[in-house]
Amino acid sequence: MRAEIISVGTELLMGQITNTNSRYLARRLADLGVDLYYMVTVGDNPRRLQETLETALSRADLVLTTGGLGPTGDDLTREAIAAVLGLPLETHPEALAHVEAFFRERGVEMTPNNRRQAVLPRGARPLENGQGTAPGILWEGEWRGAHKAVLAFPGPPRELIPMVEAHLAEFLRSQPEPPVPLVSRILRFCGIGESAVDDRLEDLFAGEDPTVAPYAKLGEVHLRLTTRADDPAAAARRLDRVEDEIRRRLGRFIYGRDEETLSEVVGRHLKERGWRLALAESCTAGLAGKRVTEAPGSSDYFVGAAVTYSNELKERLLGVPAKVLAERGAVSAETAEAMAAGVRRLTGADIGVAITGIAGPGGGTPEKPVGTVWFGLGTPDGAAAFHRRFPGDRDSIRARSAQEALVLLWLYLTGGREVLETSRR
Amino acid sequence: MRAEIISVGTELLMGQITNTNSRYLARRLADLGVDLYYMVTVGDNPRRLQETLETALSRADLVLTTGGLGPTGDDLTREAIAAVLGLPLETHPEALAHVEAFFRERGVEMTPNNRRQAVLPRGARPLENGQGTAPGILWEGEWRGAHKAVLAFPGPPRELIPMVEAHLAEFLRSQPEPPVPLVSRILRFCGIGESAVDDRLEDLFAGEDPTVAPYAKLGEVHLRLTTRADDPAAAARRLDRVEDEIRRRLGRFIYGRDEETLSEVVGRHLKERGWRLALAESCTAGLAGKRVTEAPGSSDYFVGAAVTYSNELKERLLGVPAKVLAERGAVSAETAEAMAAGVRRLTGADIGVAITGIAGPGGGTPEKPVGTVWFGLGTPDGAAAFHRRFPGDRDSIRARSAQEALVLLWLYLTGGREVLETSRR
Repeated sequence: MRAEIISVGTELLMGQITNTNSRYLARRLADLGVDLYYMVTVGDNPRRLQETLETALSRADLVLTTGGLGPTGDDLTREAIAAVLGLPLETHPEALAHVEAFFRERGVEMTPNNRRQAVLPRGARPLENGQGTAPGILWEGEWRGAHKAVLAFPGPPRELIPMVEAHLAEFLRSQPEPPVPLVSRILRFCGIGESAVDDRLEDLFAGEDPTVAPYAKLGEVHLRLTTRADDPAAAARRLDRVEDEIRRRLGRFIYGRDEETLSEVVGRHLKERGWRLALAESCTAGLAGKRVTEAPGSSDYFVGAAVTYSNELKERLLGVPAKVLAERGAVSAETAEAMAAGVRRLTGADIGVAITGIAGPGGGTPEKPVGTVWFGLGTPDGAAAFHRRFPGDRDSIRARSAQEALVLLWLYLTGGREVLETSRR
Repeated sequence: MRAEIISVGTELLMGQITNTNSRYLARRLADLGVDLYYMVTVGDNPRRLQETLETALSRADLVLTTGGLGPTGDDLTREAIAAVLGLPLETHPEALAHVEAFFRERGVEMTPNNRRQAVLPRGARPLENGQGTAPGILWEGEWRGAHKAVLAFPGPPRELIPMVEAHLAEFLRSQPEPPVPLVSRILRFCGIGESAVDDRLEDLFAGEDPTVAPYAKLGEVHLRLTTRADDPAAAARRLDRVEDEIRRRLGRFIYGRDEETLSEVVGRHLKERGWRLALAESCTAGLAGKRVTEAPGSSDYFVGAAVTYSNELKERLLGVPAKVLAERGAVSAETAEAMAAGVRRLTGADIGVAITGIAGPGGGTPEKPVGTVWFGLGTPDGAAAFHRRFPGDRDSIRARSAQEALVLLWLYLTGGREVLETSRR
């Protein structure tokens, strides 16, 4: 089965918003085993929208549209679909009931133009929109001698996404020859670079079924293992086999699977041990705390952080000796270790993680260029400092630094004392 | 002049990456006064790419492509352009020199396939790529009896954006009938909601020249004032007139213009007064510190933050009385004020700003539902606490909270004691 996506909206052609819907739809189609050859964006212009629909219907079996279903005169998708299919528009009682209920439930008076949203091409059925007034449209039938389908969704992602999740897979399964969906699994790595992963798994990357494809994320590598789900159990076994082989080679660096985040995994390890964590942040200025607390329930193990942006506060709050700051500098192994020790003392936490670095744009020197960051770990097994140098601008250096603090913490939580001994001074 | 954008890459059709290039190009074209009717995404398939180029050339004067210029066999844009224009491909000496220099400068050996990147359709000229190996392509000439142009850019945004900035406007100015660019200006509001801005400026929003259009950002409203720059001085005067009128009505809430950020403006005010700032964060867990330090040079006025996620640390570090925590709760006016006072004491800063709230998903109660946030301000003019309730999920509540801390600080820095008196208890 072959699909085409049409995004409707002059605001897209003006560059006022990024088209995240088309990427989302493209990914869903790929996962569901549907081929996608074209995605087209067109403005709120009846002639051009109709031409685009006609071209899409002539070269695809399934046309997905987003946008242009609202109540205003600029919302033309309904009319264009009806015109291209050669069908009259009719008020659909179920759709009208939905639009009316939407206003009634919110105690808002419904203006007459909202009735337009309940109008569908004859024979189409409305797709329920749990988040907004405009129902979607599903039409399926013969067009110029071939079986075609049109699925029209509203533009706002928070309306579109639940509607697609509710209807797209179901629609595809209802087809005479349903496409074979992909089954995939994501392995999440940290503490290892993409090129090292490439190097160790080159032969698996060349495999055809399952495919193994790497994605570099901020300071992490994700591998996506994918196969076709002709038989779900057989598909799972094929994925298991490859996963086992990957774990045999690089298991030490796999922190999670699928949607698990590093913050969540770190939190789980801390909770299991009953350990409490505190941070001492300088260049990241709170970003690492934000990352740790992205995991709901983090108050079970996260005590807090001392954001000591000034040297004065590093001394006053964390007890970093003035002599260390003067002789080794604020960005040094000694300061990082003293910050980690200081925040453990200050908060009574079991583990202290410290970050001090030069995020730029200013402040770099030949010995300590912008991007130089020292991390301190204070733990029940002893202390250590780690050195990193990150490329990029201020924002990305800070983001990488917060990420690396989590990575080092995870490496310690899963590797213990040995990890502390790998620290470079 | 009419343009069309073609994005080339199977990874786009697989939904593996979001197409930010097309939005960027669309916005630049709109600013430069060029009409855009279609944006098309097509995969790395020679026939479909050629058909897409042919369609675009037949309905637009200027075709912009992104992607498909690399050295591999999947990079087909060069060949497709040459085929559609009916031109032979030739190695371009200047382009070859660029590719060779790129490798030489990095001390990397150039593999033979990289020579492909120096091949251009006859008569085209290379566009220099400062960030990568693949030069862009500019072709201009007669095609099927009309004057057409093709501009091809590489896919990675960090390569494409500087190349577009360097060449697009210049190319348009070189045309026999150059388009008239837009001149626009952004006014940035905070401390006022979008509907209140709508309400006060409705008549200006209805104006046609300059146009005034609102964009809601996270806890801010931006107004874009736009006119055509037939004569730049006259255009500036037209924008000034509207800006003056907007300032007359809502000047109190305008914190900046164009690219100025709230963090920068707050920082400027602090620096002017020689005041130093400290934060006490609970639910934001460091995000407010991260926001404050987005402004380079923030170490001049930002001392640091106490991230007191646990109640114990609120007591221990900030001296919030146990009685207040027990009787009023961690999310209360009293706790927020005590946190702000505590962090001033702890750090010696002139201003303390505190944030304590319920970001969810858990922790809400009927009296204090998820989204309830209290802000404390401790200043040389006295103290105050402010209550807000934000919609959305954990992430957006935390982001809004950090933003609101900056807004309240800005309101105080520009309004003084009076702002403290508006606090709601």
